[in-house]
Amino acid sequence: MNTELMETIKLTGAVGGFPEFLPAQQRAADEIISIIKTQYESYGYTPLETATVEKIETLLAKGIAAKEVYGLRRLNAEDGEGDKELALRFDLTVPLARYVVQNQNELVFPFRRYQIQPVFRGERPQKGRYRQFHQADIDILGQETLPLSADAEVIACATQTLAAILPKGEEFILRINNRKLLQGLVAWAGSADIPAAIKTIDNAEKVGWPKTIEGLIQTAIAAPKAEDLAALLQASNLENLTKLGLSGEAEEGLTELQTVLSLAKTLLPPALHGNLKADLTIARGLDYYTGTVVETVVASAKELGSVCSGGRYENLTASLGKKAIPGVGLSIGLSRLLAWLLTQEPWASMPATPATVLVTCQDENLMAYYAKVAQTLRQAGIKTELHPGGQALGTQIKNGVKRGLTFAIMANDDDAKANRVQLKNLATATQSEQALETLPTALL
Amino acid sequence: MNTELMETIKLTGAVGGFPEFLPAQQRAADEIISIIKTQYESYGYTPLETATVEKIETLLAKGIAAKEVYGLRRLNAEDGEGDKELALRFDLTVPLARYVVQNQNELVFPFRRYQIQPVFRGERPQKGRYRQFHQADIDILGQETLPLSADAEVIACATQTLAAILPKGEEFILRINNRKLLQGLVAWAGSADIPAAIKTIDNAEKVGWPKTIEGLIQTAIAAPKAEDLAALLQASNLENLTKLGLSGEAEEGLTELQTVLSLAKTLLPPALHGNLKADLTIARGLDYYTGTVVETVVASAKELGSVCSGGRYENLTASLGKKAIPGVGLSIGLSRLLAWLLTQEPWASMPATPATVLVTCQDENLMAYYAKVAQTLRQAGIKTELHPGGQALGTQIKNGVKRGLTFAIMANDDDAKANRVQLKNLATATQSEQALETLPTALL
Repeated sequence: MNTELMETIKLTGAVGGFPEFLPAQQRAADEIISIIKTQYESYGYTPLETATVEKIETLLAKGIAAKEVYGLRRLNAEDGEGDKELALRFDLTVPLARYVVQNQNELVFPFRRYQIQPVFRGERPQKGRYRQFHQADIDILGQETLPLSADAEVIACATQTLAAILPKGEEFILRINNRKLLQGLVAWAGSADIPAAIKTIDNAEKVGWPKTIEGLIQTAIAAPKAEDLAALLQASNLENLTKLGLSGEAEEGLTELQTVLSLAKTLLPPALHGNLKADLTIARGLDYYTGTVVETVVASAKELGSVCSGGRYENLTASLGKKAIPGVGLSIGLSRLLAWLLTQEPWASMPATPATVLVTCQDENLMAYYAKVAQTLRQAGIKTELHPGGQALGTQIKNGVKRGLTFAIMANDDDAKANRVQLKNLATATQSEQALETLPTALL
Repeated sequence: MNTELMETIKLTGAVGGFPEFLPAQQRAADEIISIIKTQYESYGYTPLETATVEKIETLLAKGIAAKEVYGLRRLNAEDGEGDKELALRFDLTVPLARYVVQNQNELVFPFRRYQIQPVFRGERPQKGRYRQFHQADIDILGQETLPLSADAEVIACATQTLAAILPKGEEFILRINNRKLLQGLVAWAGSADIPAAIKTIDNAEKVGWPKTIEGLIQTAIAAPKAEDLAALLQASNLENLTKLGLSGEAEEGLTELQTVLSLAKTLLPPALHGNLKADLTIARGLDYYTGTVVETVVASAKELGSVCSGGRYENLTASLGKKAIPGVGLSIGLSRLLAWLLTQEPWASMPATPATVLVTCQDENLMAYYAKVAQTLRQAGIKTELHPGGQALGTQIKNGVKRGLTFAIMANDDDAKANRVQLKNLATATQSEQALETLPTALL
């Protein structure tokens, strides 16, 4: 995570790595999350929240370093009640697998859920490293089988979601690959250690291609073949690949990749077709991916890394349940993306209050009248702050402007007696007298 | 927490006391939370989320039993990186106090925030006891001073919020008291140990009044005076109280209580005035309350205890910062309330998917056509599930009915060629043929 971005939006927090927002930023984040929910729900994904806490054995079954897991302990607990078997989740996929296995008799398959919640990683406290961060996941799971169209769907859904939250015209590419194809190509090149070759390809973006080719040669690929493979991967031209006459796993993977790309486009309005691209250099580190894999880069914020990643997994629940529950999912790295998005308009200048109108208190003896004014406005559906008093009128209005309110309402004793108010537009600084009766209409 | 209620809605969860919802329940819970947010925001309360994790010293400064606090530890951590100083929050008020002290130069006062997040309590694992539960808090904080109108505002806001989420016509009462009045009355009765007397009154609802009177006598109140006091508290008649000619703290508290009640009513539509009631038997256990205190009982769900509680605190930030930041707030016990609400209509029969239309897949070769149909519907703003295939058509439709979908769409090869679909209303089981072009209109 880029340190400067985090600094830009002044994330605070009691403890390093557990960031918090100031009110205007939190409002912007909430609005962005609300847009994400609307997009996810348009595809029928249903909200899920799992408990923050899982059993340690569930978490460690999926091969994260134990050091990065936060276990729980009850302070000053007596013997036998320390809850030593509990820990905080480090992603949303393992809790999903556990939830689905546990509730499979209640759930209807295919099961689509979205989940927008924080996850926790035990990191050394340092700037720019989150120890708590939010993810926004969608997954679709089948029972026994799950056709390839599901892969296309999560890709299309994520594409529309990113288009809805990124600034208009922002270039972003979902780079799509297939593990079977990658494995097949590495085998075709003659590698003796396929997992090591894939790990090497996964690192290519960091270390560059000359070093990657060296790495591929170390997995027993002949030097010229390693060069060929590197060129093939970088070109990512599926038509040329077809001409190679691949067979077996590689051929299967290529067909899958072509089908997924083509179906995903059918699910999208034409304006978004260009946001999908086959990219054979994408490998994804995690072991559980078995087919489609995806990473996403945002042109103006490349330093964020992939902001939306995921793929197909056939066997995630194998360690937890008996029946196979294949799935495919994508995860938006929300905290990471927000750190950048909140520096962009309109989010960078979000008002710090949901209200548009401030009813000021210039005379505490008239509080009952001010309360009546506020009640009248709220009754008309206008979000209204009522100043509780205890501050000079000038300060009340100055603070109202600071929080981004649009109107201030003032009333003195004469106004109260006449059932009227003074209405001030805080943007134009124009002022007018209004009868309380017609005030809501003047503001709507 | 009532065990049976928790059982009724079949809360699951990997670990006892960390409950989770099934999809239909989660959707209902989300809708209820969305109504709460709308109400809170109509008063200008701004969303806040604080980090799940706090420093242990911050949490323990406010006097909760350490045994109930979940500390963190990194599994297999090396020396010096165990993060031993961290723990999970047990309420939302202490993190608010910490956040406000920490960000007081960035925040504008009076500061209104709402916060809907889970809190954690280390409890012995047992049925009906939550170890993770959600609260929905509002608080308003001032700098140096915060007039009494703020107390009236949080009460009015909570009243409108409860009216919006409880079943129509459900009787609920916000029982309002004032700590100064209670202390003054206990002193007036001659108690030698005011905190003990208040604790006794706080227990009256559990143990009954004869026992409470005995308890009051033990704080050195003369027997006849203890009877008088008990009668006064139970009657809760503020006009009769005025006739007593109280002075000092008692008089101040009485005036505050009357002002708060009267202002809160001005902030509410007349239909809700009857939901506010002075109740001198309310004491609230927590030490930090200094004035207004509130508890709320729902007539049909008395067994839940108080579903909305809080009050005024003058000195909550004293241990954390130098400046006084007085505040007043109320907290809806969301998990507790949901356990009951989700058994009520309309929440008890929420569909398990946000989509209204299911595009079935009766021929996987036609998936591109089905994808086009789904895209057309979503483009028109209709939430649509696309079946990924791999299931018999009958099962697809049966499962769609189970999840509460309204329409199913079918198409065979002839339909695809003619760019049309078969539209089935799942409620009436009527079916019609529709051109793809006019399908969205038929569904809107």
